[in-house]
Amino acid sequence: MKYLKATSLVIFFLSLIFISCDTQIKESQQKQTPKQEVKDPLPSWNNSDSKNNILAYVKDVTNASSNNFIPIKDRIATFDNDGNLWSEQPIYFQLFFVLDRIKEMAAEHPEWKGQQPFKAVLEDDMETLKKSGMKGIGQLLMTTHAGNTTEEFDAIVKDWVATAKHPTKNVGYDKLVYQPMLELLQYLRANDFKTFIVSGGGVDFMRAFVTEIYGIPEEQIIGSRIKTEFDYNNGNPVIKRLPELDYNDDKEGKPLNIQKIIGKKPVFASGNSDGDLQMMQWAASNKHKSFMLYVHHTDSIREWAYDRESHIGKLDKGLDQALKDGWTVIDMEKDWKVIYPFELD
Amino acid sequence: MKYLKATSLVIFFLSLIFISCDTQIKESQQKQTPKQEVKDPLPSWNNSDSKNNILAYVKDVTNASSNNFIPIKDRIATFDNDGNLWSEQPIYFQLFFVLDRIKEMAAEHPEWKGQQPFKAVLEDDMETLKKSGMKGIGQLLMTTHAGNTTEEFDAIVKDWVATAKHPTKNVGYDKLVYQPMLELLQYLRANDFKTFIVSGGGVDFMRAFVTEIYGIPEEQIIGSRIKTEFDYNNGNPVIKRLPELDYNDDKEGKPLNIQKIIGKKPVFASGNSDGDLQMMQWAASNKHKSFMLYVHHTDSIREWAYDRESHIGKLDKGLDQALKDGWTVIDMEKDWKVIYPFELD
Repeated sequence: MKYLKATSLVIFFLSLIFISCDTQIKESQQKQTPKQEVKDPLPSWNNSDSKNNILAYVKDVTNASSNNFIPIKDRIATFDNDGNLWSEQPIYFQLFFVLDRIKEMAAEHPEWKGQQPFKAVLEDDMETLKKSGMKGIGQLLMTTHAGNTTEEFDAIVKDWVATAKHPTKNVGYDKLVYQPMLELLQYLRANDFKTFIVSGGGVDFMRAFVTEIYGIPEEQIIGSRIKTEFDYNNGNPVIKRLPELDYNDDKEGKPLNIQKIIGKKPVFASGNSDGDLQMMQWAASNKHKSFMLYVHHTDSIREWAYDRESHIGKLDKGLDQALKDGWTVIDMEKDWKVIYPFELD
Repeated sequence: MKYLKATSLVIFFLSLIFISCDTQIKESQQKQTPKQEVKDPLPSWNNSDSKNNILAYVKDVTNASSNNFIPIKDRIATFDNDGNLWSEQPIYFQLFFVLDRIKEMAAEHPEWKGQQPFKAVLEDDMETLKKSGMKGIGQLLMTTHAGNTTEEFDAIVKDWVATAKHPTKNVGYDKLVYQPMLELLQYLRANDFKTFIVSGGGVDFMRAFVTEIYGIPEEQIIGSRIKTEFDYNNGNPVIKRLPELDYNDDKEGKPLNIQKIIGKKPVFASGNSDGDLQMMQWAASNKHKSFMLYVHHTDSIREWAYDRESHIGKLDKGLDQALKDGWTVIDMEKDWKVIYPFELD
């Protein structure tokens, strides 16, 4: 009898747990991190309007009984990269890659010592380099990005990221990502948003190393790219990188590429410059309730402070429209407890 | 004492079950339909080499203790559409859309009655239409695909699919998908493969209706496309479709677009024509064990029989390489119990 009682107890608990286990499995299938919502999902954000706007939006559009509910398949979130997920000063980090790479390649190009714009790079003569203008920069870009296969280029970028250091921050470039934005990406994914990068930066440059940092797979990284060519190569096919621009993923190029590649309007768009404005406008026109988020670089101490007059990441028309249309503008200095992940250590 | 014993028993079972529950949750996070493997995942396939090759491959590369194990992030599967996921005879279904659409648009274009190639379409004069060649077909394509916004075009295609019928099969075109391939797509996804369409067909044409049929979201549909233009349109932005080819997703265009958009080599590639050969070659060069699958149209009764000499879906060089390299070639007549889903009713 006692034995029976014990058995019944076990069965009772068993059934309770199987039900709960089943529920847990179903929930976990829909949502990768169900525990996320219990604790603060954005711990590196101060308790400001920016944070509260984000939390309120996500809570609203993921609530099945809200009029603003968005089906999971339409929860597309697009993020610019430079100045939005990582820093971009004093020059785009991809340009540091170009300069470092020219110096590395110079061993096989003795003629560069007397040939601009290469000479300027080798002599760290930034004034002459600037004067070479878009033509000079374009030449350096193509020299360092083309003339190899996709696999070779991938390995070159990986090597660079593993060793190169930012000139003033003195850490690897991959350390200069924004901790609050990493939390935001994770928070959105925990709420079944599909996160994409939509950047003016080179798509193959980004794919070489940002997937692990941001938790965004290669196929959700969209960017600028050069032309390519398929070579069957006697059964060892390669894709060759050619010295010509194929797509400039900036300004109007962003919503156009979003339509080409994703085929759906974003409901959440985040950027930091006028180059992101058309992507924001496209998201703002979504039939679903959408969220437009600008990062405003206001922290001259911990990061950099710049906006309307900057030569990089200029935020002028975008800031006007954000203020006019009530989009959320992050004040980096006030809204973010920390900027970089290493500040948490 | 008895009470204690019962409690210990309960705790013992509890811990057993929590462990098992935890394992189940982890497994279910990685795998959406863990029950799938118990029953036959490919019930519409006869027990042939084709089926057994597929099952053996998937079992091998998803087995964590196999030397051929492929991490989930690299399980990219790419499928051609026309003649591979649905029929393509007597002409590509997208061309039926073009012909139907010209007839619909003719009400607003009385001048077409005397103007080729429109006149030939309106008079069902296929001989004259054929003679108009690529130039004529191109003109019809651009007339029906451009000159509207992405949203308008999407609605037009949806309307057509809802009403149009195949001339000889006498069912909607969306009914002419291959049941065995639907099962294969589902089986691969149940094993954490990410399934993509990589088709010569128009990407926006496909996106208008195939997502639900194949269970493939818009952002995993890759195809040919025309140029587009962003128009802010006083705060109601639209993307306008322009009458010029932007990308031809065929032959070399397939691996190139896979690299541009997905950024990873497929491990599983499936097609039915020489237009898919370069995609197959690209998959065959994967460092992971890969699977190349050709659909061979051998069923003149239930579907159509054609290969080396066909004007559509020509399979010649591809068949040679498949036989030489031991790729799996589906014999539709022998390998498939049913062709279309409605045969199951």
